Formats: sequence, structure tokens, C-alpha cells
Amino acid sequence: MNIVLFTSEDIVADGRVRLSGRRLLHVRDVLGAREGDALSVGLLGGKLGAGKITRLEDENLEMEVLLDRDPPAALPLTIILALPRPKVMRRVLYSLTVLGVKRIYLLHTAQVEKSYWQSPFLEQEAIQRQLLLGLEQARDTVLPEVTLKQRFKPFVEDELPQIAQGTLALAAHPAADMPCPHAVAGPVTLAVGPEGGFIPYEIDMLLARGFHAVTVGGRALNVESAVPSLIGRLLP
Amino acid sequence: MNIVLFTSEDIVADGRVRLSGRRLLHVRDVLGAREGDALSVGLLGGKLGAGKITRLEDENLEMEVLLDRDPPAALPLTIILALPRPKVMRRVLYSLTVLGVKRIYLLHTAQVEKSYWQSPFLEQEAIQRQLLLGLEQARDTVLPEVTLKQRFKPFVEDELPQIAQGTLALAAHPAADMPCPHAVAGPVTLAVGPEGGFIPYEIDMLLARGFHAVTVGGRALNVESAVPSLIGRLLP
Repeated sequence: MNIVLFTSEDIVADGRVRLSGRRLLHVRDVLGAREGDALSVGLLGGKLGAGKITRLEDENLEMEVLLDRDPPAALPLTIILALPRPKVMRRVLYSLTVLGVKRIYLLHTAQVEKSYWQSPFLEQEAIQRQLLLGLEQARDTVLPEVTLKQRFKPFVEDELPQIAQGTLALAAHPAADMPCPHAVAGPVTLAVGPEGGFIPYEIDMLLARGFHAVTVGGRALNVESAVPSLIGRLLP
Repeated sequence: MNIVLFTSEDIVADGRVRLSGRRLLHVRDVLGAREGDALSVGLLGGKLGAGKITRLEDENLEMEVLLDRDPPAALPLTIILALPRPKVMRRVLYSLTVLGVKRIYLLHTAQVEKSYWQSPFLEQEAIQRQLLLGLEQARDTVLPEVTLKQRFKPFVEDELPQIAQGTLALAAHPAADMPCPHAVAGPVTLAVGPEGGFIPYEIDMLLARGFHAVTVGGRALNVESAVPSLIGRLLP
């Protein structure tokens, strides 16, 4: 936790914030902070700044906060990710948030196990928790939007063209000939298949909608290595 | 597990391999393979090829193997990584192996908790296990060398100059001005600090030995996002 995030509901008066629960415990027991200490803070969806602890009790803490900086810029990248297995999905959502990706689609594809869609980690609250942890790590305040798409064909036919419009649309595909480009100047839409890959039907559908199949070499990467690796490569 | 790895000790006769334990269970229970099935295999430190299951019993399985392909090329990159906390270290070792990094130094720095060095995950067998899992994922056969360095100063003074010689030497440092370069043609030595960063004394020591401090933007990345992101960026 590199910043303490609060929401407008935590504001008890102008410039005064009251926290309880996980954030109180973290500030007191992990950071070992005391009354009078200053912490980096951020208003969820708003600015970053500093908070001075004015009261630290068993049940809650109060801070005086001054918000004076914008959060870091969002990455101009939309990711469309075949749903990984739940434990991996949690860590990838965290990483994507840390890296600054703000539009995330989790998609069903032929090689995704159907049972993954039943995971409690896909409940809204569980997703939100990973996103908040990622923002706290990256000193960011802007939550990514995560959208679940359980049907490949209607998503690709009806929604994807609009999502990808005006962007460089890339599909990571180990069998592709073209290496993934470096340092792309404009916005990117990046589709990443499951570890088993997109099936030919799926790749053909993406190519038919203007996607380019790209590779990062002959290795079978796991999703947690592939996604940050592609993002690091694409960004200027 | 995208390939089944065996060692020369598993070879019972020319072109015949016998496996037991974890690999047997995986082949039988996870892959659901049967006698007569063909699998992708690799000889640890050797070539890749195909194996046909000739016997599958409770205690062991036998395969006829034909090895005819070289493993994927190693990355021309040496990483020097401040020791992350043990759980993260395990996943990072796995990712580095998957990405094809073959020389890994785990280093103590001022912001690394000393207790991390006591972790059972640093025992040779535990490290080896992560490396093997990474090779199985990436369809590779060449184990990375992992070296533990518990003393920063003598390592940087006495060993690092030789390690970095003839390479582009980069130190990932959030406070740096220079963006990390893309698509470097030659070999790279990459130093990555702990999440708290290198302290000024450490960065100065690296700079004095020809390292360039580079950044991938203003975000505080976690190690698991930062490392693949830097590697994806550096590779051609």
C-alpha cells in the first residue's frame, strides 16, 4: 500500500477523512503510523495528496488531507483477455491495474474452462478488491472498468469493432509471424488468448475485424508473464 | 506443463525413458494420457522432441522418445534482482524462466528485509522446482543459473563489473529521467531494485560502474509487473 485511498463517503468534513477496517489496520499495524504522522493519500476517482493523522483509535482514524496532484496518466490501451483460471485472473487484474490499464474485458473463448465463470473471484466485490489493491500499489486513484463477456461471437461481432475503432488492434498469437511492435504512439487494443491460444476460428474472426496477429517469440508464455511483457513493449 | 521434462537418469535404455512421481501423476491424472498417446518431451539440458507412452502403470510410465529439436534461444539478458519477499520471489523465478532468462542474481539491498534470506523457498531444491515448472511451461530444457548474493557492496565492487562487461547495463529506478530503451540489439544486464527502490548510495554505486538509471514511467510497479514489462520492452 503506497497510498491510502478513501472515497467521498469517508469524508466527514471539508478536508477531514475518517477510516476504519482494513485501511485502519494497515496504517496502524503494518505501516506502524501514529498520530501526527503524514501519509500519501488519494481520493478514489480524484486527486492525490498528503494526509496527517489527527486521531488514531481502536475503531477508526482521522486525517486532515490536502489533495493537490493529479493521478498518473492512464495507459491508452484496452485489453481483451481470455478469462484465465481464477487465481491467475486475480493477479493479472492486480497487475493490469498497477500498470495503468483502465479498460479490461474478460472474455470466454473455446480454450477457457467453463467452470472458471463460476468462481467467487469474479464477483464484483472480489474484483473491486483487486483493483483497489492495484491502485494502492501504483499510487493511482482511477479504477479500471472490468467487463465480463461470456459469449465470444456476439462480443466480437457486435461490440469489438466499436471498442477497437481508431486504435491499433493486436491479437497476441504464438503462431503469428509478425513480432509485436514496440513503442506504439497511439491507442492500442490488445487481445490476449488463453494459455492454450485462440483457436483458428477465433483468430480468423479477429483478423476479419482488422486485428493483426503478433508474437513475442517462440515461447509458450504464461498469462502473468505475457501480459506485462506485451504492455511494456507496446508503450512508448 | 507444456512438455514433460526428463533427465539422463530417467533414461533406461536408448530412446526409452521411465518416469514416476509428480510427472507420472501429471501425465496420467491431469493430461489424462493413456498408453499409445504422444506427448511433447524434452531432455533437461538437451533437445526437445516427442514421446510415445508404451507403458502406464500405477508406479511408473515408460515412453519411447525421439529428440530432434533445439530448445528456444536463451535471452541475452542477465538480471540482478533485489530479493523480493519469498512468495513473490517464487513467482518471479517462474516468470523469468518462462521468459527465457538464464542468468539470475538475487541480491540483498538496504530495502530488502533481512528475514527474507531465511525463507525455505530459497533452498536449492525449492528454487529448482520453480525453474523446472517454468521450463515445462515455456517448452525449454535449459535451467537458469540462480546465484544468491547476500552482500551488496562486495558483489557490486568485485563481481558486477565482469558480469556487466560488454553489455548495456541498466538499473530500473523510478526516479530516473531516462525512459528504459526499447528493442536493444545486444546483451543487457538489468538491475531491478526492491519495491522500495534502490537507496541513493546503491544507485550511485551502480552508476559509477557504468549502469544507466532508467524508468518505465511514474508508477510504483510491483516486482511481478515490473520485471516482465522491462524484459518485453528491452527485447528486439
